[in-house]
Amino acid sequence: MNPILVEAVRGSIRESAHRGAIAVVDADGMPVASLGDIERPIFPRSAVKVLQALPLVASGAAEQLGLGDEELAVACASHNGEPEHTAVVARMLGRAGLDAGALECGAHWPYREPIQRQMAAAGIEPTALHNNCSGKHAGFLCVACRLAGGADLRRYARGYIGAEHPVMKGVTAALQAATGYDLSTTARGTDGCSIPTYAIPLRHLALAFARVATGVGLREGHRRAARRLRTAVARYPFMVGGTGRFDTRVMERLGERVFCKVGAEGVFCAAFPERGLGVAIKIDDGNNARAAEVAMAAAIEAYVRLDDDAARLMRSLSDVTLLNWNGIEVGALRASEELRRLGKAL
Amino acid sequence: MNPILVEAVRGSIRESAHRGAIAVVDADGMPVASLGDIERPIFPRSAVKVLQALPLVASGAAEQLGLGDEELAVACASHNGEPEHTAVVARMLGRAGLDAGALECGAHWPYREPIQRQMAAAGIEPTALHNNCSGKHAGFLCVACRLAGGADLRRYARGYIGAEHPVMKGVTAALQAATGYDLSTTARGTDGCSIPTYAIPLRHLALAFARVATGVGLREGHRRAARRLRTAVARYPFMVGGTGRFDTRVMERLGERVFCKVGAEGVFCAAFPERGLGVAIKIDDGNNARAAEVAMAAAIEAYVRLDDDAARLMRSLSDVTLLNWNGIEVGALRASEELRRLGKAL
Repeated sequence: MNPILVEAVRGSIRESAHRGAIAVVDADGMPVASLGDIERPIFPRSAVKVLQALPLVASGAAEQLGLGDEELAVACASHNGEPEHTAVVARMLGRAGLDAGALECGAHWPYREPIQRQMAAAGIEPTALHNNCSGKHAGFLCVACRLAGGADLRRYARGYIGAEHPVMKGVTAALQAATGYDLSTTARGTDGCSIPTYAIPLRHLALAFARVATGVGLREGHRRAARRLRTAVARYPFMVGGTGRFDTRVMERLGERVFCKVGAEGVFCAAFPERGLGVAIKIDDGNNARAAEVAMAAAIEAYVRLDDDAARLMRSLSDVTLLNWNGIEVGALRASEELRRLGKAL
Repeated sequence: MNPILVEAVRGSIRESAHRGAIAVVDADGMPVASLGDIERPIFPRSAVKVLQALPLVASGAAEQLGLGDEELAVACASHNGEPEHTAVVARMLGRAGLDAGALECGAHWPYREPIQRQMAAAGIEPTALHNNCSGKHAGFLCVACRLAGGADLRRYARGYIGAEHPVMKGVTAALQAATGYDLSTTARGTDGCSIPTYAIPLRHLALAFARVATGVGLREGHRRAARRLRTAVARYPFMVGGTGRFDTRVMERLGERVFCKVGAEGVFCAAFPERGLGVAIKIDDGNNARAAEVAMAAAIEAYVRLDDDAARLMRSLSDVTLLNWNGIEVGALRASEELRRLGKAL
């Protein structure tokens, strides 16, 4: 039974509670701290996009196509589908000689409601470019471009979302190498954007992010790629999320000191380079990101040295004041005592 | 520790799980079945709007102002803010000689995204009429109109959301009478629409809905009011929710055989008149309605006799197929085995 990591308080009582597990691991794979079951395999979903983007750099595709930091950042993104995001993804596809028609992620309205309303007011319908995963998929297509060599790229790339396609095989191999977990025998599901997602224990996910943080344990190509991707995201944190998003707000403030990435169903992973640590969180109930964000904010408070401004930001994210429709304070969403104690044990 | 009521499955594994509690109670207050802790007080939020609307009928306000079934149904609603809803609420306020300016619920964009986009495309900004609680608040203002007699209504009604206002005192008294729970000593919070919400155990909430189902245990005025409100909602189920909403879909199919109402933070209550039962559910993690809806669908399957069409609808709501952005089936959201066994024990 996993402990309560996050609680929603209203009036004088706890209204709701989120159980979950968290692993904090160093690059040697040693758990520095943990709560709950960190050995049960869970689907990491979009939290591992940076690992799935390793081949984009390591294959030489990024260099060959002249991708810049914005393109590399959006390849690691679950973005809001704001005009800045779709423009960069379209540019990226253009460099590979492709367009949105090559994306196999499906289309959806941007998650952020104000963006939907702006689009509706402007008479814009969503395309695959607006899919929060479109940057990751554009990255896959850039790898396809590299692998295809002189062959017909559209034909070569078709079906790149399938587990047996050479592009996806490379992505899966990178994920396996970084996590040190055998993906050939673990449970597999289909992600929202149609690529495979593999069940991996939190301990191994945290290890992968400690490796991203330090380079230790990654082979040369992946080490350089991880560093390049972290730098790109630190320079363009807007690209990995967008207006109002947790990942964007945190990395705009903390730069290269934190790389964090949310996933669906209550997953959150992060690399803390200064401390050489990786973190992986899964909230049992999944559902949406509210609890995983609070837990990640508490983990950052526990393990990253913060100046006063950054400390205030992080506290506002780990102890969130809840306002109602009249702007009246009605409660809070906050890290549990047990989670707060995690960092203090060090 | 509450049991798992609902699970989210992806591929071959359980990706997420929702714990919670459910009480099924008859009008004498006898628990017919239950899972989890049904004695811990929880905030019922919007699930008890029908109880909060009892004074609207019992005070004579509805009759005095000539309110019809649509108005009474929207007074029990957490509606989508669709044009049909805002029109009925505006009409209701008009009968009391008021307009949207008297509403103290605050404004918000309708929850349902397509409605937001339609409004944005038409250049419409949200007002308090679009607040999902505007019908309930219009009902409070109709009660104020009745209580004010010949006095200046705007002046009399001002502050009606406060616990000490005569209107809200009547609402609280009705809630206490129906649930048989002492609200003067229990925890109190402020709801999203700024009225007080009182912590009440699931057993007492289920009792209140068994009383709404049967009339047994309610005093004469509330008994007539409960029957009138149930009939109104059965005739206009669109008014309590709207397009695509669980409550609307279920009651469009089942009419007076089920009265069900969702609340925030994973709460759901229902009355099953044919069986003389009341049901109350709280999902521990709150968050959003996905798990509470699945649990309520399973409760309806367990306790309400269904024809084949209705049985298919309810199964599609208690065992929800999850599709991704390409329309590929990726998993399911479904009632747990433990919840399924609940009805079979009878």
